[in-house]
Amino acid sequence: MYEILKTVNGPADVKKLNANELEMLAHDIREALFNRLTQIGGHCGPNFGIVETEIAMHYVFNSPYDKFVFDVSHQSYPHKMLTGRRNGYIDSACFKEDSGYTNPVESEHDWFNVGHTSTSISLATGLAKARDLKGGKENVIALIGDGSLTGGEALEGLDFAGSELKSNFIVIVNDNQQFIAEGHCGIYYHLEELRRTKGTAANNFFKSLGLDYIYEENGNDIQALIKTFQKVKDINHPIVVHICTQKGKGFKLAEENREVWHWSLPFDRETGKYKVSFPAETYTSLTAEYIVNKAAKDKDFVVITPAMPMTAGLNQELRQKLGDQYVDVGIAEEHAVAMASGIARAGGKSLLVTNSTFMQRTYDQISQDVCINGNPVTILLNYVSFDGLTDVTHLGIFAVAAFSNIPNLVILAPTSKEEYLNMLDWSVEQKKHPVMILIPGNAVTSRVADKEYNQLNRFKIEQIGEKVAILALGDFYQRGEELAAHIKAELGFVPTLINPRYASGIDEKMLNDLRQNHQMVITLEDGILDGGFGQKVASFYGDKNMKVKNYGLKKEFYDRYNPEELLKQLGMTTEQIIADIKREC
Amino acid sequence: MYEILKTVNGPADVKKLNANELEMLAHDIREALFNRLTQIGGHCGPNFGIVETEIAMHYVFNSPYDKFVFDVSHQSYPHKMLTGRRNGYIDSACFKEDSGYTNPVESEHDWFNVGHTSTSISLATGLAKARDLKGGKENVIALIGDGSLTGGEALEGLDFAGSELKSNFIVIVNDNQQFIAEGHCGIYYHLEELRRTKGTAANNFFKSLGLDYIYEENGNDIQALIKTFQKVKDINHPIVVHICTQKGKGFKLAEENREVWHWSLPFDRETGKYKVSFPAETYTSLTAEYIVNKAAKDKDFVVITPAMPMTAGLNQELRQKLGDQYVDVGIAEEHAVAMASGIARAGGKSLLVTNSTFMQRTYDQISQDVCINGNPVTILLNYVSFDGLTDVTHLGIFAVAAFSNIPNLVILAPTSKEEYLNMLDWSVEQKKHPVMILIPGNAVTSRVADKEYNQLNRFKIEQIGEKVAILALGDFYQRGEELAAHIKAELGFVPTLINPRYASGIDEKMLNDLRQNHQMVITLEDGILDGGFGQKVASFYGDKNMKVKNYGLKKEFYDRYNPEELLKQLGMTTEQIIADIKREC
Repeated sequence: MYEILKTVNGPADVKKLNANELEMLAHDIREALFNRLTQIGGHCGPNFGIVETEIAMHYVFNSPYDKFVFDVSHQSYPHKMLTGRRNGYIDSACFKEDSGYTNPVESEHDWFNVGHTSTSISLATGLAKARDLKGGKENVIALIGDGSLTGGEALEGLDFAGSELKSNFIVIVNDNQQFIAEGHCGIYYHLEELRRTKGTAANNFFKSLGLDYIYEENGNDIQALIKTFQKVKDINHPIVVHICTQKGKGFKLAEENREVWHWSLPFDRETGKYKVSFPAETYTSLTAEYIVNKAAKDKDFVVITPAMPMTAGLNQELRQKLGDQYVDVGIAEEHAVAMASGIARAGGKSLLVTNSTFMQRTYDQISQDVCINGNPVTILLNYVSFDGLTDVTHLGIFAVAAFSNIPNLVILAPTSKEEYLNMLDWSVEQKKHPVMILIPGNAVTSRVADKEYNQLNRFKIEQIGEKVAILALGDFYQRGEELAAHIKAELGFVPTLINPRYASGIDEKMLNDLRQNHQMVITLEDGILDGGFGQKVASFYGDKNMKVKNYGLKKEFYDRYNPEELLKQLGMTTEQIIADIKREC
Repeated sequence: MYEILKTVNGPADVKKLNANELEMLAHDIREALFNRLTQIGGHCGPNFGIVETEIAMHYVFNSPYDKFVFDVSHQSYPHKMLTGRRNGYIDSACFKEDSGYTNPVESEHDWFNVGHTSTSISLATGLAKARDLKGGKENVIALIGDGSLTGGEALEGLDFAGSELKSNFIVIVNDNQQFIAEGHCGIYYHLEELRRTKGTAANNFFKSLGLDYIYEENGNDIQALIKTFQKVKDINHPIVVHICTQKGKGFKLAEENREVWHWSLPFDRETGKYKVSFPAETYTSLTAEYIVNKAAKDKDFVVITPAMPMTAGLNQELRQKLGDQYVDVGIAEEHAVAMASGIARAGGKSLLVTNSTFMQRTYDQISQDVCINGNPVTILLNYVSFDGLTDVTHLGIFAVAAFSNIPNLVILAPTSKEEYLNMLDWSVEQKKHPVMILIPGNAVTSRVADKEYNQLNRFKIEQIGEKVAILALGDFYQRGEELAAHIKAELGFVPTLINPRYASGIDEKMLNDLRQNHQMVITLEDGILDGGFGQKVASFYGDKNMKVKNYGLKKEFYDRYNPEELLKQLGMTTEQIIADIKREC
C-alpha cells in the first residue's frame, strides 16, 4: 500500500522515478485521496482530476525555488502529498495536520493560505514582480481552473499579466469542463472552442489579452504533461498552458456526476453514500422549497447564485423546474450583486444566494450598486454561524461586522422556521430596502413570528422580566433562552429575553425603556464583536446608567477550532455568563 | 447662446433636429460644458469626447423606454443636458441641481446613481433579465469605456452577457485610447489592435466571450453614429459596439493632455490655469516626495496604484523616475491588492495607494489575500475625511468601519507631518503586519512623533488632565485640541487629550488607567460611528464605571453636504460638546 508514495519525501524524490513508477505514484495518490476523503470528506473531483498535473509539475519544476500558486488551493492535495505531507492522507491519525488548502505554516512549498477562488494569477504576478526587482530567475506558476476563471480578480490578473509582465510567468489553466455547478459563461464556451480546434482557433481569449498560449489535450497523461511543461520552463514571457483533464478521474462516481462530487462529506467508496445523514427538514430544504413555490406563483421572481445553488438546496432537478427564473452567473459575485440590483430596479424580485464568506468579494457592489440606489434586492447568506465552516478562509463570523455598517442595508437574523420564512417572503415582496438574511445554522425550531418587518430595527421581547435583559441575536437566540432559564433557576429572578431580529441597527425606544427596571444588558452574538451588533448597544448606553456586557468572538482569524471549546475560552458558556452576572447584580 | 440646446427639453426634441442642427447642438453642449467646468470643475475630457455619442443615442433610441446605463456616469453630462437638465450646465444658479452623475432622483432617464467604475454592464444585464421575464421589448444599452474595462466587475459582466443573455443587449465601448492615467493592460492593447484592423482582427476579445461585435471608427461623427446605432437597435442578441472617440474633443488642452484634463478643478478656459491654488506642502506632496526618495534608496520598494497615481502626487515626471518600481495596474483594485500581497510574500516592500472609496472594491482581497496571510503590505488611503469628497458615491467616511474589523490589519491614523512620515516609513520597513494608513485630509501640521509602531494599539497621551478624556482620532485630532482648550477656558479644568493613532484597536491598559481620575471619555472620529473606533471604546467600558460619549457621523449615504453644517446637525461642534460635558460633569 502506498509503496511509491512512501518513497517520496519531497520533489527531489519525484524526479528520481521512471515513467512506470510515476504511474504507480499516481495510483498511490488516488488511493490516499480515497483514504482521506471517505473518512473526513473534502474536495473530491478536483483532486482526483489533477493528480498527473501536479506530479508533472514537481517532476519538471524545482519547488520551492520555482514557485507554485494554487487557485483556491482546493486541488492541491496531490501537491501536498508530494511535499512531505502524505501522512495527512494515508494516516487517519494525521488528517488534522493537513488543512486541505495550501498553507505556508505547513510547508515551504506553499506560498499562500488561500481558499477563495480566482486569486492565484494576481498573487503570482506579485511573486514575479518581486523576482524581477531582485533579479531572480525562478519560474512562477499559477494553477487555475475548475470554475475559477470567471472571477473578476482572475480576469483582472490575466489582463495585467498579458501586457504588463515582460518576464517568466506561467498560468496553467486546468480545463476540466466544469464549473462548480452547471453554469456556463462566455469563457467556458470559449474553452470548448479551443478544445474543439485543439487550441488552434484564430480567436483566442488569452492571446487577445497579450498572453502566449499552448495547448495540451492529454491532461491526465504524465509523460505528455512533462513534455509540455519542459517546453515552457524558463520561458521569458507570460504564457497560458491550457490542459484538458477529467474531473474526478479514477473515481467513477465523481467522473459521472462532476457537480455532486466536487466536494463531499465522508462517504462509502463503493456506493458513494454519505456516512452522515441529515434531518429531513433543514433551513436549506426550507429555502429550496420556498424558492420553488415562489417561482411557480410569481413570474417576476428570479434566483441568482454565483455558482452556489446547493447552498440553497437547489439541485439539478429543482433548477430545471425554475427554468428562466434561475440564473447561475458562475463564480462572479460582483456581477451577481449588480445584476440583482438591475433586476430589482426594473421591477423584478431578485433573490441572491451564496455562502457568507464569498459575499465579501462584493462589498462595494452591495454598497454602491445596491444600497446607494436602495434597490430591493434580497441577499441570502448561508454558513454565517461560528459553528458552520471553521476553515480560516471560510469563516462566517465576519458577516455582520462587514455588512451591517453599510447604510440602507437591512440585515435580518431569524431564529425559527416561521421567522425565517416570513422574513424571506416579506423581503422578496417589499420594494423599499435592500435586505440581507442570515440563514440560521441551527437545527430547525418552531415559534410564532411576525409577518412583516417594515418598521426597521424593532426588536421583539420574547419574555418580559427584570434586572437583566438578554439580547440574543440570530443563531445565539437559543443560547439566550438557555441562559434565561438558568438565571431563573440559579439566581432566582426572571430576566428579559429579547430577539433583536435586526442585526443592522438598534431599537432605541426599547433600549430606553429597559432602563426602568433593568441594571444590566447582555448581548450575545454569533460573530466577532468588533463592528458587530453588541457594540452598537454599548455605544447607545455609553452615557446612561446601564451596565452592558457584549459577548461574541474576538476579531481573529480562527482556524479549524472546536466551536464549544472556543466559547469556553472566550468566557461565553452559560455558566461563565451566570458568574459574570452574579458579580454585577 | 445655447440656441439649439434651449429647444431641447427631452429626447423627442433631439429627434426633430436635422443634421446641421445636431451639429449645432453638439456645439452648444460643449459651450455648456465649458460654462460649468470652468466655474465648478468636474469630469472634463470624458464629457467633451462623448457629446456626439450621446446625441446619437438619444436620436436613435427612445429613452426612457429604451434604457441607458452609464458606466461611472462621469461621462453623462451631455445625456443630462438632453434630458431636461441643461440648466445645471448653462445657468450657474442651477449648478447644484445636477449631481454630475446619473441619479434617478433627478430624472426618469437615469436608472442608477453610480460613481464607481466597471458597473454598467452587470447593472444593465439585470435590466435586460427583468425585461425578458416580463416579456418587454425595449433596448438595454450600457455605455462603458474611458478606462473602465479593466475592472473585474466589467469583465465578469461581459463574460456573462456573452453567453447567458439570449436577447437584446447593447454594450457601447467608448474607446478613447485612454486610461485615467497612463497605465495599459492587455485589453487596451487589444483595442489598439482592433482599431488598427478597423475591427477585422481575427482575434477578438469580445467575440471570444460570445458577444457579437461591430466597429465604428468615427465616434465623434453624429451621422456615422446614428447609422451604426440604427443597425443595432432592436437586435435580438448581445452585441458590442466599439466606437473610437477623441477624449477632450473640442477643448484643445484636454485633447493634448488627456490625463491631466480627465477631471479638473475650476479653470481659466484660455490658459487652463486652475482658479484655486494649493499650499506648496500638502500630504499629497509629502507622499510623492517620500515615495521617490524611498525608491531611489531601496530597490525592493515598489508602488502600486489602480489608476490613481495623482492621489499620491505621482505625476508623469515622477513616475518616469520610478521606472520599474512603479506599477499602474489600471482600474483593477482586486488585482492590485493581491499583487501587492505577492510582492510582500516574496520579500518586496509594496506600497499601494488609491482613494478610500475605491478600496471598498477589494474588501475580500484585503481580508483573504493579504490579512489571513499576514503579508506586510502597506495600503495608503486618500480622501478618508468627511470634508474631502462629498459626492455620495465617493465618501471616505466608511473606511474605518469597513476595514478596521478585518483581523490582522493595522490601521494607522496620523495627525501630523512627522507622524505620517514616520508611520509610512515604519510600515514599509516592518515585516509583520498588513498596514493601512489614512492620509490626513487636513492642512499639514507639525508635531514630534514616535518613530516606530510595533506595539499595536498603544495610544498616545498628548496632554495629561483630569475628569474628561478626549480620544480624538486622525483628522479629528485638531478638533480634539480645540475642544480641550475650550474645556479649560470655559469649564475650568484641564482634560486629558489622547491621540489614539491606531484606528483598528484599543489600548486597554490606558483605558483602564483613565478610570482613576476621569469620569467621562469622549471619542471623536472622522467617519461613521457604526462599526468604527468609538464603539470599541464604548464596549470596553460597558460594564465599568465610566461615561462614554461617541461623536461621529451617522450610518447614512450623505450627498453633497456642507461639512461644517453637518457637524452642527450631528451635535458635534465644540460648543455642543461642551454643553454635553456640562450636563455630565
